Amino acid sequence: MRKYDEYKALMGKITDVYHTVALMHWDTEVYMPAGGGEFRSRQIGTMTGIAHEMATSKETGQLLDDLMGEGDLTCDERRNVELSKKDFEKQVKLSKEFVVQLAAAKSRAFAKWTKARKTNDFDHFADSLAELVKLKRKETEVRGYHNEPYDALLDLYEPGLTTQTLDTVFTQAKNEIVPFINEISALPKPRTDFLRRHYDKDGQWSFGVDILKTMGYDMNTGRQDISAHPFTVSFAPTDVRVTTRIDENDLLNMTWSCIHEGGHALYEQGLPVAQYGLPLGEAVSLSIHESQSRLWENHVGRSRVFWEYWFPKLQEQFPDNLGDVTLDTFYRGINTIGPNLIRTEADELHYHMHVIVRYEIERACMNGEIDAHDLPRVWNEKYREYLNVDVPTDADGILQDVHWSHGSFGYFPTYTLGSFYAAQFFHTAENTVSGMADSARNGDYSDLLKWLRENVHAHGRKYDPEDLCTRITGEPLNVKYFMDYAKKKFRQVYES
Amino acid sequence: MRKYDEYKALMGKITDVYHTVALMHWDTEVYMPAGGGEFRSRQIGTMTGIAHEMATSKETGQLLDDLMGEGDLTCDERRNVELSKKDFEKQVKLSKEFVVQLAAAKSRAFAKWTKARKTNDFDHFADSLAELVKLKRKETEVRGYHNEPYDALLDLYEPGLTTQTLDTVFTQAKNEIVPFINEISALPKPRTDFLRRHYDKDGQWSFGVDILKTMGYDMNTGRQDISAHPFTVSFAPTDVRVTTRIDENDLLNMTWSCIHEGGHALYEQGLPVAQYGLPLGEAVSLSIHESQSRLWENHVGRSRVFWEYWFPKLQEQFPDNLGDVTLDTFYRGINTIGPNLIRTEADELHYHMHVIVRYEIERACMNGEIDAHDLPRVWNEKYREYLNVDVPTDADGILQDVHWSHGSFGYFPTYTLGSFYAAQFFHTAENTVSGMADSARNGDYSDLLKWLRENVHAHGRKYDPEDLCTRITGEPLNVKYFMDYAKKKFRQVYES
Repeated sequence: MRKYDEYKALMGKITDVYHTVALMHWDTEVYMPAGGGEFRSRQIGTMTGIAHEMATSKETGQLLDDLMGEGDLTCDERRNVELSKKDFEKQVKLSKEFVVQLAAAKSRAFAKWTKARKTNDFDHFADSLAELVKLKRKETEVRGYHNEPYDALLDLYEPGLTTQTLDTVFTQAKNEIVPFINEISALPKPRTDFLRRHYDKDGQWSFGVDILKTMGYDMNTGRQDISAHPFTVSFAPTDVRVTTRIDENDLLNMTWSCIHEGGHALYEQGLPVAQYGLPLGEAVSLSIHESQSRLWENHVGRSRVFWEYWFPKLQEQFPDNLGDVTLDTFYRGINTIGPNLIRTEADELHYHMHVIVRYEIERACMNGEIDAHDLPRVWNEKYREYLNVDVPTDADGILQDVHWSHGSFGYFPTYTLGSFYAAQFFHTAENTVSGMADSARNGDYSDLLKWLRENVHAHGRKYDPEDLCTRITGEPLNVKYFMDYAKKKFRQVYES
Repeated sequence: MRKYDEYKALMGKITDVYHTVALMHWDTEVYMPAGGGEFRSRQIGTMTGIAHEMATSKETGQLLDDLMGEGDLTCDERRNVELSKKDFEKQVKLSKEFVVQLAAAKSRAFAKWTKARKTNDFDHFADSLAELVKLKRKETEVRGYHNEPYDALLDLYEPGLTTQTLDTVFTQAKNEIVPFINEISALPKPRTDFLRRHYDKDGQWSFGVDILKTMGYDMNTGRQDISAHPFTVSFAPTDVRVTTRIDENDLLNMTWSCIHEGGHALYEQGLPVAQYGLPLGEAVSLSIHESQSRLWENHVGRSRVFWEYWFPKLQEQFPDNLGDVTLDTFYRGINTIGPNLIRTEADELHYHMHVIVRYEIERACMNGEIDAHDLPRVWNEKYREYLNVDVPTDADGILQDVHWSHGSFGYFPTYTLGSFYAAQFFHTAENTVSGMADSARNGDYSDLLKWLRENVHAHGRKYDPEDLCTRITGEPLNVKYFMDYAKKKFRQVYES
């Protein structure tokens, strides 16, 4: 047996275990009876421990070292081995004791956060959050960094990403988005009343499934279910599931979540099956993953050509709600912007202000510049300054997101990077794939999907995020593409 | 840390892994998209391998040996350790190579069987079946036995069960059931036409769920879904799920499966949570498990008092189908007996003839007395002799059950033993729990469930099957109780 085949078998086995954990998470969110939670947590703990032991064992390390010195490897094989070696080194840095300590702290923090949010009582969560911040700061020291502690965490979600890069990107974004929001906000607001009429569950569900299928999401290797928070999960490229939620008084909640998760799922379904368990069978990074969901959600789903096809169908499904609404009114309504409190309900422009607030807070926490107990004050000040809103309660403020209670510091920035990558990728697609807008008018996205498959999905982690971007678009990430897209679109929406 | 606590932690961890495998099986039957099968098989293989390695490792063996010599254990603790030691010794007997070889043969056989059954082509399955028989015979040699190879397999499902015991039980059963069937079959058949009217899916579903809840099945720690073959699965006593199937032209298919699986599930929900992962937290044996499903299905569900409560509700749900049917006609209809081809559709009497056919065939196979290729002939002869039916096709004959393609030889007898235990347990319950029939007339089974919880469920594997039976009923398994029950009931049904 070739050493490489041994490595492939081992990585496949480790991946099998991680996918089993993913199935437990899916089941927990979607079908588990309420009473099953306690043992499920323990089973997830056991399996995560087993996977971690396998992934960081001496044998795994030795095998990777041997392969690093192996001459007889193809380029793809070498890339796999190098990335696995990097992943291994990241994982072994933390001692098992620290991993267990962190897992326990997260588990406590999540329970505290859940209650704190429900009862609008930040104090209930504060000590747990402070403990997590302390542990994550310790983690940054163990992992190491060049300039700032926060960089060590950014690198976990987006390999190579630093505060230096983010500062440049976010400063430019802020400098352009804020005045543009002011410009648009001064104009008369389009009608949006019809979006809040009563849209029944079954009708919404079948509309969402139709969209998913038409996007190219393969129901033979996927399925959709309902959960409190929509997500995508993959157990293999041949079993990639999405969830959605349905609010009968809010048509867009389901619509955007279907298209968004569909975009994530198309990426996972498009990863090369033959590379199962290996880096070339995995998504590049969180930003690139988010670029796929945002590209479909924003550039496809919020476009006029998209609704030229879908709006008549939606009208047919809900004649009482939409009989008196024109395509144009609908299109303007779904693209209305306005300041709001909740990140997940934000429009395409304000969204990034929500992220920047979190970025600045996370970074300061990791630098030891803010005490966790003081976060509501800092949060509310930044919301006043960047989003022009007063935060009435911590439940709709500092407590709105689950991420920190999961110990996920450094995750939020990938949402904004994903949007910017999406704009840049879509710009290239529009200039490369001929007749894309006309196809969209006919509900046909096959050429776009083919382009994404060939340029993004099929490569797995073959290229680093920046390299992939340059390969596809001819240059590294450039905020200009998002701003050009946004300015053109929202001026049209508001001035038409 | 006490050595016993170390043992408890280890057994819990191994159980976590097995329950993870169980979740994958559940998902495969219930929700997995068709395309996910291949990677699911591989993931199940990986996890089963990991569980087997943990369960048979030197460290596990050493820990058990140490504990066997430990003086400082309570009675329950000692019982756990002794049973774990026995389980360990059973599991280590097979080499990893043999386990892998057997797993591969089963996987091939299952695929062949599936196709063979679909196309009614036994020859397509014959070689695979012969290979499995050969491997299972090898397994009996490795495991060892006193009198007959088949005993080594019986012991896997029902600790201590031998052909000697079964011969006695089955001979007595045959000698009493066959003439009784002849006696009853000579009488005029009750009406059954109304059972085959169209019963819509939603109505059947909600009727089944109402029954489950009323039985005491806790939906906070359970749920029901649809699958091709009904089954019960447990991930912990706090997460025990059932499935059912619904045939819109057959009311009883769903009804019996709901009550049957409900009986299994009540057992699993009643196992002591504090003993999670340990033998005292597990079901005694397959026969005792089946005693619980059969007790509910036959003695509760097929009784007249049961339908005094439920028939009016059923009439209300399906007025067009049952408006012209009286309780008495209904009760007699659902308890009609008759020879049939398919085991899972058999009545309470013929059922055991189906099992005896399989018992005789399995035993002869393990003794090397029948060639697998010759099985359809043997099968058909026995069906002619014992069930008085001509088998028209192998699909409805030798190919009807999945068990052999799974390598499960020695499993079928536990179905019949379970029925006989059920009759004996129920006889005792009737004489112990006061007012049970009256409670049933009011849809109240709480006293019966309490009695089962205290006498069966709460003990886990504390007592061996025969000991448990003696403890509860004052004597070991005795076919008399089943025959008394059957004779009284069917004479009433047919002569009223």
